[in-house]
Amino acid sequence: MEQRTEISSLGEFGLIDHLTRNFEIQNSSTVLSVGDDAAVIDHFGKQTVITTDLLIEGIHFDMMYTPLKHLGYKSVVVNLSDVYAMNATPTQITMSIGISNRFSLEALDEFYEGVYAACEKYGVDLIGGDTSASQKGFIISVTAIGEVTPGKFVKRSTAQKGDLICVSGDLGGAFLGLTLLEREKKIYMENPQVQPDLENEDYIVGKLLKPEARKDIVEFLAQHEIVPTAMMDVSDGLSSEILHICRQSNVGCRIYEEKLPIDERTRAAAFKFGLDPTVCALNGGEDYELVFTLKQEEYDKLTLNEEIAVIGYITEEEEGRKIITKGGNTFDITAQGWNAFYK
Amino acid sequence: MEQRTEISSLGEFGLIDHLTRNFEIQNSSTVLSVGDDAAVIDHFGKQTVITTDLLIEGIHFDMMYTPLKHLGYKSVVVNLSDVYAMNATPTQITMSIGISNRFSLEALDEFYEGVYAACEKYGVDLIGGDTSASQKGFIISVTAIGEVTPGKFVKRSTAQKGDLICVSGDLGGAFLGLTLLEREKKIYMENPQVQPDLENEDYIVGKLLKPEARKDIVEFLAQHEIVPTAMMDVSDGLSSEILHICRQSNVGCRIYEEKLPIDERTRAAAFKFGLDPTVCALNGGEDYELVFTLKQEEYDKLTLNEEIAVIGYITEEEEGRKIITKGGNTFDITAQGWNAFYK
Repeated sequence: MEQRTEISSLGEFGLIDHLTRNFEIQNSSTVLSVGDDAAVIDHFGKQTVITTDLLIEGIHFDMMYTPLKHLGYKSVVVNLSDVYAMNATPTQITMSIGISNRFSLEALDEFYEGVYAACEKYGVDLIGGDTSASQKGFIISVTAIGEVTPGKFVKRSTAQKGDLICVSGDLGGAFLGLTLLEREKKIYMENPQVQPDLENEDYIVGKLLKPEARKDIVEFLAQHEIVPTAMMDVSDGLSSEILHICRQSNVGCRIYEEKLPIDERTRAAAFKFGLDPTVCALNGGEDYELVFTLKQEEYDKLTLNEEIAVIGYITEEEEGRKIITKGGNTFDITAQGWNAFYK
Repeated sequence: MEQRTEISSLGEFGLIDHLTRNFEIQNSSTVLSVGDDAAVIDHFGKQTVITTDLLIEGIHFDMMYTPLKHLGYKSVVVNLSDVYAMNATPTQITMSIGISNRFSLEALDEFYEGVYAACEKYGVDLIGGDTSASQKGFIISVTAIGEVTPGKFVKRSTAQKGDLICVSGDLGGAFLGLTLLEREKKIYMENPQVQPDLENEDYIVGKLLKPEARKDIVEFLAQHEIVPTAMMDVSDGLSSEILHICRQSNVGCRIYEEKLPIDERTRAAAFKFGLDPTVCALNGGEDYELVFTLKQEEYDKLTLNEEIAVIGYITEEEEGRKIITKGGNTFDITAQGWNAFYK
């Protein structure tokens, strides 16, 4: 039988001690960590980057098909992704959670296993947080802190005419993973005897439940002294992000449908569900890839990295923000990203 | 008739633009603020302090008697209080909120009016955040960032035998404000015709709904070159905080009941409700005063500040953590603070 320890048996401070007991500091800039009113970090000669995300059960994740360990991992990764999107290196996170009493300590440990796995993989320290009761639903709030050499951070608003538009990895997988899991959930709700059919779908399910932040891309850029002119991570969907860059930079763009990086397994899943893979790649969110713009002169350096695709270029604002289809038609790019307010 | 704008009519990014449109940067260390993946702050030659708090409707606040503007103000202040408790100066905050569609834009504006009022009063910049839908209840997550001269931050774990124990302002007011509002709420629920009776209770209600962080105390300490040996803010209750300092410092203490600072209006409210003012001062939370320990040599400097009371002293650990009553009896200090898990 599984062990169940009531969280109330520890109290809040006992709980924090419990959750942080095996955690070791990885960054020398971490001067003071969990256990005081605030944490202290030291960033001599570096600039500090801060980002925060709030994840709410029923809005951002469904506990029915989200393993807690994956959820902990993903909560960290989505914040680190924002730090990388600044061309910065994440160094610390804070993690606040609101939990109802349906959570056992074992469940919470599973969640934190994922948190710590992400911290270890990306070399960040968990330096604080807040633990609260919640009347209903699981609430996760993460703040990530990173360092960047002064002036080297990359904004969204500085793309220029003629720049290449690049994207890392491949797109649409997380959206198809979600589509699959939502379908299986519906089948299960109607008939709890039916076992979920996730065979051969590891790739898209993994893209949704255990995404990675593109540390490798930021390291590649640094190694080859490539500084993007603008950069964002793909959380709401490629269309949405490209429109952000264009609007904030006052530029237009051309994207080529045939250049969009889509994995074969994503494409196969799209066909299975009767969806257009291009639409999934453009409007599906949560891929946590990086989209960035570059001076054309840097093009040759890109060929060294198979994980980066050039998908179009930046134009004058008057030329609009358009996608050119495989058939040669031109359409305006519209954002239909994962905007919780429109759901 | 009051105007009601549906938040969905703006979309998330329109909403963020709306909420941050009138906000100006106050700190030169704020290099990049709202509107990108992360904010950038620059702390050359300073150490950075980070703290975060999660506030959940129904757990930390009751919308029935909490004006939104006050809630916004308090959400910021409670985090700044943690920064001051490190002997640091807050410089930036991030603010994430989860809101259900029962919130109108006007309601949210009211909340942000309070947020901005606190930012202005304390000289901090709002540099980012996340805005999300919530299925049920209002969720607020704030992260505050502060600066401190390297090595000058004050921990909880460094109190030493013989140190004086000091507390700022007065205690128990917020708890009695809560007691009063909970009573009025109950009366109202039973009989909505009865008007709330809050006459002459401005003080305790204000302590609960619109607390201030003790910026003045930290400034006073700096001005007189007083560095506390340990410090915390009083959020869970004085007993709880003193026990934290003692446990983390491996020391004991003696507190004198007669020295506890309690405002006359707090005392009067306690008697009205049949409560012991001392118990309210020891165990009531949310006063956001500072409790700190000092070398005895610093005592003379304290007399300059009427807002600081010396309430006891630190002993060897073996002597226990005790309170001496007005009648001369000695009791162990026990924490019965506002621990949401025990409620």
